[in-house]
Amino acid sequence: MKEPASPTSLSPTFKDNDKGTKTNMETDYVIVFRYANTTKAEAGKKFALLVERLARVGLATEVRNGDNHSLLIFVKVASEDHVNAEVYRSRVKDWIHGVRSAAPSKETKKAIEEEPLHEAERYRIIYRMITNSEEEGGAGITAKEGEWKNVESIFALHDHAYNKEWIQRWTKKYLLDTEDLDEIRNRLGEKIAFYFAFTQSYFTFLVFPAAFGATAWLLLGKFSPIYAIVSTLWCIVFVEYWKHQEVDLGVRWGVRGVSNIQTKRRHFEHEHEGTDPVTGEKMQIFPATKRLQRQLLQVPFAIAAATVLGSLIATCFGIEIFISEIYGGPLKSVLVFLPTIILTTVMPVLNGILTTFAERLTKFENYETDDAFEYAMTQKIFVLNFITSYLPVFLTAFVYVPFGAVVVPFLDVFSLTARPFAQNEKQLQAPKSGSFVINPDRLRKQIIYFTVTAQIVNLGMEVIVPYLKRQGFTKYKEMQSERAAKSGRQTTSTTESDNPDEAAFLTRVRREAELDVYNVTSDLREMVVQFGYLALFSTVWPLTAVSFLANNWLELRADAVKICIEMQRPIPERADTIGPWLDSLSFLSWLGSITTAALVYLFSNDGLGPDGTPKNIRGWALLLTIFFAEHFYLLIRWAVQIGISKIDSPGRQKERRDRYLVRQRYFSESLSESQKLPQVGKFGEKITRESLEEEARASSLRSSRVEDRFWARQRNWHETAQVGAGLIDRAPATEEVKKMQ
Amino acid sequence: MKEPASPTSLSPTFKDNDKGTKTNMETDYVIVFRYANTTKAEAGKKFALLVERLARVGLATEVRNGDNHSLLIFVKVASEDHVNAEVYRSRVKDWIHGVRSAAPSKETKKAIEEEPLHEAERYRIIYRMITNSEEEGGAGITAKEGEWKNVESIFALHDHAYNKEWIQRWTKKYLLDTEDLDEIRNRLGEKIAFYFAFTQSYFTFLVFPAAFGATAWLLLGKFSPIYAIVSTLWCIVFVEYWKHQEVDLGVRWGVRGVSNIQTKRRHFEHEHEGTDPVTGEKMQIFPATKRLQRQLLQVPFAIAAATVLGSLIATCFGIEIFISEIYGGPLKSVLVFLPTIILTTVMPVLNGILTTFAERLTKFENYETDDAFEYAMTQKIFVLNFITSYLPVFLTAFVYVPFGAVVVPFLDVFSLTARPFAQNEKQLQAPKSGSFVINPDRLRKQIIYFTVTAQIVNLGMEVIVPYLKRQGFTKYKEMQSERAAKSGRQTTSTTESDNPDEAAFLTRVRREAELDVYNVTSDLREMVVQFGYLALFSTVWPLTAVSFLANNWLELRADAVKICIEMQRPIPERADTIGPWLDSLSFLSWLGSITTAALVYLFSNDGLGPDGTPKNIRGWALLLTIFFAEHFYLLIRWAVQIGISKIDSPGRQKERRDRYLVRQRYFSESLSESQKLPQVGKFGEKITRESLEEEARASSLRSSRVEDRFWARQRNWHETAQVGAGLIDRAPATEEVKKMQ
Repeated sequence: MKEPASPTSLSPTFKDNDKGTKTNMETDYVIVFRYANTTKAEAGKKFALLVERLARVGLATEVRNGDNHSLLIFVKVASEDHVNAEVYRSRVKDWIHGVRSAAPSKETKKAIEEEPLHEAERYRIIYRMITNSEEEGGAGITAKEGEWKNVESIFALHDHAYNKEWIQRWTKKYLLDTEDLDEIRNRLGEKIAFYFAFTQSYFTFLVFPAAFGATAWLLLGKFSPIYAIVSTLWCIVFVEYWKHQEVDLGVRWGVRGVSNIQTKRRHFEHEHEGTDPVTGEKMQIFPATKRLQRQLLQVPFAIAAATVLGSLIATCFGIEIFISEIYGGPLKSVLVFLPTIILTTVMPVLNGILTTFAERLTKFENYETDDAFEYAMTQKIFVLNFITSYLPVFLTAFVYVPFGAVVVPFLDVFSLTARPFAQNEKQLQAPKSGSFVINPDRLRKQIIYFTVTAQIVNLGMEVIVPYLKRQGFTKYKEMQSERAAKSGRQTTSTTESDNPDEAAFLTRVRREAELDVYNVTSDLREMVVQFGYLALFSTVWPLTAVSFLANNWLELRADAVKICIEMQRPIPERADTIGPWLDSLSFLSWLGSITTAALVYLFSNDGLGPDGTPKNIRGWALLLTIFFAEHFYLLIRWAVQIGISKIDSPGRQKERRDRYLVRQRYFSESLSESQKLPQVGKFGEKITRESLEEEARASSLRSSRVEDRFWARQRNWHETAQVGAGLIDRAPATEEVKKMQ
Repeated sequence: MKEPASPTSLSPTFKDNDKGTKTNMETDYVIVFRYANTTKAEAGKKFALLVERLARVGLATEVRNGDNHSLLIFVKVASEDHVNAEVYRSRVKDWIHGVRSAAPSKETKKAIEEEPLHEAERYRIIYRMITNSEEEGGAGITAKEGEWKNVESIFALHDHAYNKEWIQRWTKKYLLDTEDLDEIRNRLGEKIAFYFAFTQSYFTFLVFPAAFGATAWLLLGKFSPIYAIVSTLWCIVFVEYWKHQEVDLGVRWGVRGVSNIQTKRRHFEHEHEGTDPVTGEKMQIFPATKRLQRQLLQVPFAIAAATVLGSLIATCFGIEIFISEIYGGPLKSVLVFLPTIILTTVMPVLNGILTTFAERLTKFENYETDDAFEYAMTQKIFVLNFITSYLPVFLTAFVYVPFGAVVVPFLDVFSLTARPFAQNEKQLQAPKSGSFVINPDRLRKQIIYFTVTAQIVNLGMEVIVPYLKRQGFTKYKEMQSERAAKSGRQTTSTTESDNPDEAAFLTRVRREAELDVYNVTSDLREMVVQFGYLALFSTVWPLTAVSFLANNWLELRADAVKICIEMQRPIPERADTIGPWLDSLSFLSWLGSITTAALVYLFSNDGLGPDGTPKNIRGWALLLTIFFAEHFYLLIRWAVQIGISKIDSPGRQKERRDRYLVRQRYFSESLSESQKLPQVGKFGEKITRESLEEEARASSLRSSRVEDRFWARQRNWHETAQVGAGLIDRAPATEEVKKMQ
């Protein structure tokens, strides 16, 4: 047909494409099979194998043409039995790992009727059917890996009608409630729901420091110790409360403990095989000591990263100060932007290189499970982020302001570089120590930049840039098609074979296939870094929380939009925590207790003595402030942890009730057994025969063992009571009893 | 008979009493019923009720006369069924609380045959039969409380033959192995076994600091930073390793998690009643906020205790320095002992008063469970012990030596008191600041006192003093009897009714009834306090660990002797940890990182500058040292925790294996269900009918829903494969593939 694709059908927003988004054709997943780098014969063989494998686990397939040497395989569940088996297997596994307190009913169908699947669970299960290895009962399709290099991606189709309604609903709401979170969990899975729950919880908590910060800003003046204490307390309560809430949500969503179910990393390379001492099965072993040796490489890596990024930041910082506060030559208005330009161009490149290096390092550490890998990777990412996000502020706060008068004259070196621009020597003269006046507002300006400007830029980057990028890409494609049509050259005529029924749908699917995969970790990282500014530096500018409050209201909604429009529908994953970021939060809150104390000590009255020069900082006083602040922090945190651990919650109650019920049933069954016990009857025999048998007993006393004789003297409790009463009677009365009588 | 009791039968060692110790007459427990403060009629009634209650739970009784208006009730199990029921109940409870991974077999007898009772468990169960409330299926006998004020004590009889053999075996051994600990556990229960396991583990660990300390003492000189670092590392490893070992022992002894089984405190007073949200049962509630208010009283209590004990210690310390280093008047040689005399007389009294007060406070805090009560009490005891044990050293190290020259002249006040003894004014002249020379060896002498002298004295107090006390008591009794015999006055003729068969046995039982009850907490406290000296101050005198090593070898054996001879046979209790003392260990080890760093900084070269006066201490340097040491400590502890958490152990493996087996069984049962699933067959139909049905399908495509038409285009995976192959074939070859071809 070779007519140019209609522009509307390629445009990326909802409205123009309603016809393509009305139905998902009951598709569960779409698999993109790309054969650009394979011979046709081989591709055909692989493709046949692929669909056969899918059929074997009960999945029906349809194939359509994709873009640029790719096929789209539409997958839907043909056999519910296979799904049910997988669901059941997953539930039993949950029970084994203690995620469920009750064992699932042994009859598969009944078990599923009792607890129907929600949407995310269904998608998760079907994804597992596609990707699980054949031994585990799946089709063993692993995108981009090994045998399945041709499989480019496996993704689910968006439910556009729902997405539209969802986002419209959110934009009209101030706060998300638990039902909204439940809804996310039901549609996108627990991992993403935990991100939204965390951000929502953080947002709600921010209301307090925003209000208090605004008050402090108006009333308490600069670097108020009161604000510092309240802010540190808030950090403690927030982090501890989130830990508490995480447990609750985990129980609510029935995923408490899923992090114990560890999936083996595909790339794990074992050194030798051994026998699992627990299960007796063969297991692959990589010695922990060897891994430890490899992990130790993290230390030079961290040092190298800190040095590289640190010297870049320090250099730019130095140039900036030199230009803005020392340099007086020509082009100053232009040169002022030099450090920003260097930072924004070089930093992402460096960061990218270091991240790639971190990933290689983590791979080299050869973790056994996906979780361990992700944990190690997240830690490294956190270190990189820590350096890039906070080091500039640290330099200003703890180097420039206190030691500015000492350090700045050394910036002389830059005057060598600046010499060509200088018109006279005077412009380059470094100010003499003492005459140089530090700009005390620099720190505040920097904080405002990081907490307002950077946040806005970031939000823009997340939403607007991808939109523009996609628009550009679409335009480029259109142009290509047009040019191809004009030149009459044979093109990849993707759409020519499309049935008119499906054309719009297929166009839409092809578009979704090109979208990025949503990565919840980077969104979480953003929130944690933001929390870091609040914990570490908010005392510099108490309005920090106000800015974050506004930003996060938008952020939550922007993320929802991003998931719905910019990204492929995420494949639901389970989680019972925000994972390693929790450690990062604790660490930042701890470090915050130190930096806040130091900042308050250094900068009260902007760090200036009465004469306008940096006041005389006494090392011992600074350290004593830090010492007390940190131990005060640890003490309070301990108290808050104890306090919060005592808070009960519906989730915890539910968990206890479940366990209680399961075991109560067993207990009552067994108690009814033990109630059939002999009662006291036989000990209650009357002692009328006593006198008759006395003699017989007396003789037995002589004949038997001493122990038997000992125990035969009183035949039952009545006799014991009688003998005892006799002994009591014969005893002389004590002084006290005499008095009583 | 009124003849004086033969001296041999009252003497407390084994040898003289072999006839009384040969048999326990199969007695399980002895109950002492004292009626000195009750009218005879009432006593008789209570006594009858007591034996009836015991009979009702299947316990046989014999009564004999005791000392001084008391009866001895011998109790043994008459009905094994009742014991079995109690055992079973206990095991099901364990299972409910997760102590056991597998539910006990529902048939009681079978369950007990499968896992026979060991001795300690049997004693524990019988004790529970006696003391548990009637609703719980026990006899409800609570010594010294409520209804049972007359019941003075409930105790088991020593197995003297075994004890003798046990102690002889131990004295010939250098180290106790796990079998020895198992034996303690089997005879005395887990709680005491945990004490021995801890002390043994501590003893083994001490070998390293003893060896290293001796080397450091010889080679490294005074206050070596190397010794300080190694010692801090050792503390971390020891505490963390013990935590790890505790888990292992708990699993080995099948008590992991018993601390979750909380017994309700009898003295708990509820404020109102409510419904348990989990079980739906009625529960008694005391508001946590109210308890928190009461707990806050701990703060003034701690401050008051610190002030009272602290000022006593500080005063004695001041007097001591005044007398030994300033005072030159007469009687100096006598007066030198004055502070020691004050301390040894006043301190125990004060300590006693404060402990009583602490107990009242803890009672006032009104805890719901015994565990919570004990925890709170232990914390308070730790605070008191901390002050009395370490404050003197803190004063010397951090007040006297660094600030001696400033503080000592103020000791002038004492010269007023000393004036009457002075012969001339010169003797009383306080040295002028600067001319006063601090005695730098004082700190070392003090540490040696606490780590050697005090330990030996303590050991003596534990073993020898009670022996002498008992000997004296026996003598006193003999004298009383003799005097009574001489005067012909009526005495409590305890032994007159004794059957000659049993006389020796009864005498021995009467003696055991008078023994103290063994309290494992005080022994544990002693070890923790000892560990504190090592963690906090061993850098002052690196031989500390050598002294402790020797002391603890004896201590372990002395404690065994004490349990066998000085004390009643302890009633076995379960535990899975050394409890709150673990927190104390962690705290001491943490604090040690600070004090050690401070000591090393202050006292290198004995804290003296080249001129012999205290060197110029720079506050910031001291604080920086502490700051780095503490954070180094926290970092290393974190690393050690991670490292140790990765160590597997037989106990952990056993636990995992148990859980695995229980669930594996279930899993395999359910898997066999799911393997009956339909296989691929129906998807594998050959597509021969394809052409025939093509037209029919084409028509159905027109008639049905768009979704049906979409999925009807390819009928099975063969068709999908064919269509896919066709699409691949028709696609233009890519550059790369062209090259390949």
